[in-house]
Amino acid sequence: MSKEIILTGDRPTGPLHLGHYVGSLLNRVTLQQQYKQYVMLADIQALTDNYENPDKVRSNILEVAADYLAVGIDPTKTTIFLQSQIPQIAELAIFYANLVTVARLSRNPTVKTEIQQRGFGESIPVGFFIYPIHQAADITVVKGTLVPVGEDQLPMIEQTNEIVRTFNRLYHTDVLKETKAMIPKVGRLPGIDGKAKMGKSLGNAIFLSDPADVLHKKVMSMFTDPDHLKVSDPGKIEGNTVFEYLDAFGTDTTQIAAYKEQYQRGGLGDVTVKKYLYEVLDSLLGPIRERRATYAANPDYLMKILHEGTQATLEVAQQTMADVKKAMKLQYF
Amino acid sequence: MSKEIILTGDRPTGPLHLGHYVGSLLNRVTLQQQYKQYVMLADIQALTDNYENPDKVRSNILEVAADYLAVGIDPTKTTIFLQSQIPQIAELAIFYANLVTVARLSRNPTVKTEIQQRGFGESIPVGFFIYPIHQAADITVVKGTLVPVGEDQLPMIEQTNEIVRTFNRLYHTDVLKETKAMIPKVGRLPGIDGKAKMGKSLGNAIFLSDPADVLHKKVMSMFTDPDHLKVSDPGKIEGNTVFEYLDAFGTDTTQIAAYKEQYQRGGLGDVTVKKYLYEVLDSLLGPIRERRATYAANPDYLMKILHEGTQATLEVAQQTMADVKKAMKLQYF
Repeated sequence: MSKEIILTGDRPTGPLHLGHYVGSLLNRVTLQQQYKQYVMLADIQALTDNYENPDKVRSNILEVAADYLAVGIDPTKTTIFLQSQIPQIAELAIFYANLVTVARLSRNPTVKTEIQQRGFGESIPVGFFIYPIHQAADITVVKGTLVPVGEDQLPMIEQTNEIVRTFNRLYHTDVLKETKAMIPKVGRLPGIDGKAKMGKSLGNAIFLSDPADVLHKKVMSMFTDPDHLKVSDPGKIEGNTVFEYLDAFGTDTTQIAAYKEQYQRGGLGDVTVKKYLYEVLDSLLGPIRERRATYAANPDYLMKILHEGTQATLEVAQQTMADVKKAMKLQYF
Repeated sequence: MSKEIILTGDRPTGPLHLGHYVGSLLNRVTLQQQYKQYVMLADIQALTDNYENPDKVRSNILEVAADYLAVGIDPTKTTIFLQSQIPQIAELAIFYANLVTVARLSRNPTVKTEIQQRGFGESIPVGFFIYPIHQAADITVVKGTLVPVGEDQLPMIEQTNEIVRTFNRLYHTDVLKETKAMIPKVGRLPGIDGKAKMGKSLGNAIFLSDPADVLHKKVMSMFTDPDHLKVSDPGKIEGNTVFEYLDAFGTDTTQIAAYKEQYQRGGLGDVTVKKYLYEVLDSLLGPIRERRATYAANPDYLMKILHEGTQATLEVAQQTMADVKKAMKLQYF
């Protein structure tokens, strides 16, 4: 097994969807075979923009845990933990805050972009502003060396490594490890409305937990070629969400190629190809949905998994904190 | 005994001096009779502008603890604790960071002033910038309701109460308590160079730990009336540090009044009145110096006092964190 340690995770603000499945969940199922992997339920980070709604965060923790197990994240191989139960993360964040200037944080492109997207304007909560520092604490508390992230998150990794280097230099130590981004090859899955990104808040997501009838309804309402009005019309497959999904999830490439050819030529109706996509998706999501229902019906079991993962993480975090406090000469009793 | 809970403390960046004695230490010796009092050694705060020098902070912790006991702070009445050993302070600070905007922090007059004084310019460390939030965590972690501070620290108290009110409102709770400033009546003691403020970094301080010969040397070098050149010249007592100290520390008011009269008329030399001040100060500081030497020679005892105080504080902090996490619905296992 590799010596690399992976940290990844999700903000528990809603159940996970097909975009997560393609973009990160499948990857984690593979990575757990080869690496020590931590998956963090970032409930404190979720509170940075849901601080008025702790119930939402709380209820989604079990939803996301059920999603994890249903897709094959194996708690005997992957340590799943709750961010809020690891006080060492907050302690590290406070220590690291001395090593970063306000000017440096303000220049962070991820922070800049997200501030724009969320429309914070002048009233950015401090918790949100300092989140790059908190994220450095998330990663280093488990001595993470590999973080699967999108390209847009690279400045976060750079900020983490700046903190690691500054800390090690100032305190003449090597207890903190630099981390590397691991950028997955998979493209982004569009929403069912054809928009570039699937998101729960965008209302265009297919959730892993959607019942078969909801899945059917969503597939039948999917964005296709808006100029493909009659069955006999030639249709476009570029930018056609149904075909993009078939490329992402279909396995019968001969059948898909035939459908594409017929659609472009004219003579294939949206309904026919959507019914086919529904079957493709349901054969993938059906077993996940079934396993998920079993887990969701057993919250005590889910809580036990989270408890065990959190305890295991706590032991590592205590060791990290002992190393850090020793380097900072803050060990006393 | 009053139900109020006092939090006060010092940054352990050097041994304490006569300015501390007059401005806060004497007050604490009185307050401990009547109130539950916590005295915090703010070693994390000390690191915000000494992060490159942890040794300095570490070595001064025992110095300051010896000062405390020497002046009569009684560990059976006052709980003395180390900020760095209470992880709940960092956890609270991270929670509170969501409740304060960057714009609000930037307007904090204390932060503004200190940024100017310390010449941070554009490169303010985040740890320093967010210190008002951290201070709210210091106070509320022990459910402090009274904080002895100077007028210049009032904005810090206001920031704390804003956080308390916002937290209680958002999470429909009353677990956090508002706090009141307790502004001591005593004036500020000037430095031995006549400058308005005594400070260790200003090089104009008389330390509680100064040996008798050092005290003698400092008193003999004190700023007086620069126009009082010959013994026979009339001298000014206004702005004359020696007389200000006599007013602050002398007990024989008849003798002091006689000296003042003679000095203003002419015929009293600086050396005579300085020798008298030396005796006044040495009769105050001699016993403190002696007790201090005994404590300083017994670091194990000092560490035991700090350990016990920290353990007691930790129990209170755990209770506060349990209350806070319950309100935020972050209790899981």
